[in-house]
Amino acid sequence: MGESIYGMKRTHRCAELGLENVGETVTLMGWTQRRRDLGGLIFVWLRDRSGIIQVVFDSSSNKELFEKASGIRSEYVLAVVGEVAKRAPEAVNSKLKTGEIEVLAKELRILSTAETPPFSIEEDSDVNEVLKLKYRYLDLRRPDMQRNFILRHKVAKVARDYFDEKGFLEIETPMLTKSTPEGARDYLVPSRVHPGKFFALPQSPQLFKQLLMVSGFDRYIQIVKCFRDEDLRADRQPEFTQIDLEMSFVNVDDVIEVNEGFIKRLFKQVLGIELETPFLRMPYREAMDRFGSDKPDIRFGMELVNVSDIVKDCDFKVFTDAVANGGSVRAINAKGCGDKFSRKDIDKLVDFVKTYKAKGMAWITVGENDIKSSLTKFFTPEKMKALLERMEAEPGDLICLVADKNEIVYDALGQLRLELARKLDLLNKDEFKFLWVTEFPLYEYDEEEKRWVAKHHPFTSPMDEDIPLLDTDPGKVRAKAYDIVLNGVELGGGSIRIHDQDLQSKMFELLGFTKEQAWERFGFLLEAFKYGTPPHGGMAYGLDRLVMLMAGTSNIRDVIAFPKVQNSSCLMTNAPDFVDDRQLEELHIKTDIKG
Amino acid sequence: MGESIYGMKRTHRCAELGLENVGETVTLMGWTQRRRDLGGLIFVWLRDRSGIIQVVFDSSSNKELFEKASGIRSEYVLAVVGEVAKRAPEAVNSKLKTGEIEVLAKELRILSTAETPPFSIEEDSDVNEVLKLKYRYLDLRRPDMQRNFILRHKVAKVARDYFDEKGFLEIETPMLTKSTPEGARDYLVPSRVHPGKFFALPQSPQLFKQLLMVSGFDRYIQIVKCFRDEDLRADRQPEFTQIDLEMSFVNVDDVIEVNEGFIKRLFKQVLGIELETPFLRMPYREAMDRFGSDKPDIRFGMELVNVSDIVKDCDFKVFTDAVANGGSVRAINAKGCGDKFSRKDIDKLVDFVKTYKAKGMAWITVGENDIKSSLTKFFTPEKMKALLERMEAEPGDLICLVADKNEIVYDALGQLRLELARKLDLLNKDEFKFLWVTEFPLYEYDEEEKRWVAKHHPFTSPMDEDIPLLDTDPGKVRAKAYDIVLNGVELGGGSIRIHDQDLQSKMFELLGFTKEQAWERFGFLLEAFKYGTPPHGGMAYGLDRLVMLMAGTSNIRDVIAFPKVQNSSCLMTNAPDFVDDRQLEELHIKTDIKG
Repeated sequence: MGESIYGMKRTHRCAELGLENVGETVTLMGWTQRRRDLGGLIFVWLRDRSGIIQVVFDSSSNKELFEKASGIRSEYVLAVVGEVAKRAPEAVNSKLKTGEIEVLAKELRILSTAETPPFSIEEDSDVNEVLKLKYRYLDLRRPDMQRNFILRHKVAKVARDYFDEKGFLEIETPMLTKSTPEGARDYLVPSRVHPGKFFALPQSPQLFKQLLMVSGFDRYIQIVKCFRDEDLRADRQPEFTQIDLEMSFVNVDDVIEVNEGFIKRLFKQVLGIELETPFLRMPYREAMDRFGSDKPDIRFGMELVNVSDIVKDCDFKVFTDAVANGGSVRAINAKGCGDKFSRKDIDKLVDFVKTYKAKGMAWITVGENDIKSSLTKFFTPEKMKALLERMEAEPGDLICLVADKNEIVYDALGQLRLELARKLDLLNKDEFKFLWVTEFPLYEYDEEEKRWVAKHHPFTSPMDEDIPLLDTDPGKVRAKAYDIVLNGVELGGGSIRIHDQDLQSKMFELLGFTKEQAWERFGFLLEAFKYGTPPHGGMAYGLDRLVMLMAGTSNIRDVIAFPKVQNSSCLMTNAPDFVDDRQLEELHIKTDIKG
Repeated sequence: MGESIYGMKRTHRCAELGLENVGETVTLMGWTQRRRDLGGLIFVWLRDRSGIIQVVFDSSSNKELFEKASGIRSEYVLAVVGEVAKRAPEAVNSKLKTGEIEVLAKELRILSTAETPPFSIEEDSDVNEVLKLKYRYLDLRRPDMQRNFILRHKVAKVARDYFDEKGFLEIETPMLTKSTPEGARDYLVPSRVHPGKFFALPQSPQLFKQLLMVSGFDRYIQIVKCFRDEDLRADRQPEFTQIDLEMSFVNVDDVIEVNEGFIKRLFKQVLGIELETPFLRMPYREAMDRFGSDKPDIRFGMELVNVSDIVKDCDFKVFTDAVANGGSVRAINAKGCGDKFSRKDIDKLVDFVKTYKAKGMAWITVGENDIKSSLTKFFTPEKMKALLERMEAEPGDLICLVADKNEIVYDALGQLRLELARKLDLLNKDEFKFLWVTEFPLYEYDEEEKRWVAKHHPFTSPMDEDIPLLDTDPGKVRAKAYDIVLNGVELGGGSIRIHDQDLQSKMFELLGFTKEQAWERFGFLLEAFKYGTPPHGGMAYGLDRLVMLMAGTSNIRDVIAFPKVQNSSCLMTNAPDFVDDRQLEELHIKTDIKG
């Protein structure tokens, strides 16, 4: 059994001490990073949240204490009373923040012993992730993980401070509720009191925050857990956290302005980085045309160029067909890659674009005096010249062309652009390039369901000038919607909402809901809109993803204390698990599977 | 369709304006509290979160604007541009914060019309609660409700600020997890990916916060939703919010100290009330003996007095039996009530104690020269004298006695004490009397299950000096547990935890778990304890209840934006509800009930 701390009080955290404390008697408590014995001395590195300090036990000054210290093993939890001393110059350890000092122990209590852990507690240790997640509590001891959660705490704190200053109220919305129509699958919770009925865990507090605007709360924030029962991708978790906002009496500019202030403050206070505002804004159409993406990484150029007009009457059927069928031919100029890339490298790029559904990729390498390309035979010299001019081609360049339906061209070239940037090492991790993508289409056509679906969600307002198009050309209607994008990652997004019951009903109609269906699902919102609704709009950030980028990691599990793995289970607790039959009976449900 | 705010920007909230703004042109947006027409003038009271201001439309200055204003109805949402003007002295309305000014309208947009709401939006309106909850978004417009949520926001903000300053990190724990053993029923969430298995929503993050201490995070806070599927009482909700804390390397005093600092800061910053610290501390035993309650209201006296020794050999068998069987006879002196209360009033008190399982209540009214009591015949004059002396009886007093098993005596007299305080109007709502109740018993004996159960939870540490009693007399073991009590309401509680695997295993054993059961349910915690565990302890507050008391309401639904009613349903959204068969199929569950 471990010793008690009775009568003791910690005076400092380990790495809070410095030269200014020399001569002081301090009480420290923490974990044993390592023990080294050197003649009549024992050196223990004591670790806590703040860092590490060296504690020295000297057999010549206290034999009994020395004996006790010789029993210390890695990860033992200790309380040490001792005097802070300056190390001799030759003993200074520049790798430790506290490397100029050490603590000469006068008292030791072993608060807890420890078995040898399944992996050692080291910075950035390269341990199998399954093992790390099973022993998550040990993984979380690693200094890099501790820093991630200190960072996460700060991000949430700055968010709350900033939005509080701006008059936002944090108001909690229910976890046990009805499904919101975000398109994803709901997690359901069977009701015991109402047999056969179910709650749903929220995919977002969308309807509730809009109702809070109807209630006149004016500005709402919540940092809130949301849930989606989808098959996990690398950066998805079944439960995730949103910084969720809503404001009344605002237009797009107002929402963007207050959020730029937030991001600016956040990066300044948490990372010490001064961002320039206002951020660049780019309409969706332009983002797609220039970058083939609605979340472009603008840390580098290599933009897409539409060459349809030049190639539309060449002899290459793939190109002419694409243009004739309403698609396009677009290209990017991979500067300097003509020299750098072998034929084999280029073949790999062709394979790459094919994973994004492109049927192929044409290319031109530009030499000092000639070009190499499979296209030459299909092009007159004038056409080729026009093409190269359009692409601002110079000797050494590689021009990559894709022809297809626009969606495929955008996606393939947009991804190729990113792939080339990775290969060319153009992505500076310390550079943070924000932009707003605006004027998203209100609708997307769902080929499978043969109907229009909301690109954002069904409460998003169309742009005033596009309202007449609702009846004639829904695909052309732009929304008052905006995404904030950082280095090619969508951090969040939002919209101005529809605040008019008639317009909202019309939206539901266009989305294929019957009046009954709309009222069954959103009746309380439509009802609420009858009683005086302010113009309103908002925003939601994915907090996990934001912290992930700020922490400089690419694994979302590094910023979630107890994450789920790919199959939605927790390797530490073994959740989900079988439950007692009695519990299921009480909930009026059955499962065919036996535990 | 409502008008747009395009090109307009709100300059102030309504009640932010004062005499200092006279002459300024302002843009306000809000709801119509009421419209009054007076000759060629229309007066509109415009309301937003901040309060109300009067807007004046003058037919003589702008006929067209006046016409438009005449269409305004209650709860219409307006945008008004106008000039702030001083009211004539006789027109000042002292009931409005902005009563010395008004806004002379120059421009009006009707942003949203409104049907007549089902109830009017007034302070403290006395509307049927079912109607209010169905139209919750309208109920929340009422100024008293808005104040409650502004208060709630502030409480959470101060909590986060304070604990951040004290080095606590807010770390999120999972919502989809395994059941924690808090004794209540879990809400279950069927897993789609793992047929037949279930997640549970957390009853508290207890195990996770302890694991965070094992991880070395040192100080943890989270304001977090918790869930219990219990039949609702007036102050319970299926989902509720905790301010949840945990600290490493601390003892009881450390936890109490940091929490007193929090409460002091909270009352100062939110209510402007200066509380005296340290708060009173009282061991559980003393609280029961003096107040018959482990959450005594100490705003008034009327303490319980044990008279068993005096009455144990009187002739009243009820008394002597109670004492002989290990119970007791205790009494309270209701000062001055002997005169005040009629025989009928006293009979009501007898009925009252019977609802708390007492078999009856004996009483004595003390007159100037004599006493009235059914006990007289059983008592010698000496005994009666001794009894009255013990009770410090004076003429006019009413002595109430209950004899039974101790639990019943405590409960009946503790409740009677509160009942008398209500009748005598001794409970001052503006007085905030805090105390800590400490040294709770570690175990309670469960008569039904015939075994010891944890009074707090199975991770609570026994007091060091009582550890030997674990084997010999578990009922006598006191815990390092503490509750914080305000005016007779338990606001929160916590304990120092067991941080030793062997002691933890022993606890589970005493609670009747086999080793296998303990490992199946808490294996990851027991496993974690092997690798070096700091002494740690913590605390959790019921945020809803704390805000309820600070807001001066007795209805917990007044401080929860979208609450559930007694049968756990939401009257606004109709959750829980039936779902598609397809959803249930995907989750591998069936229900016999058809929607």
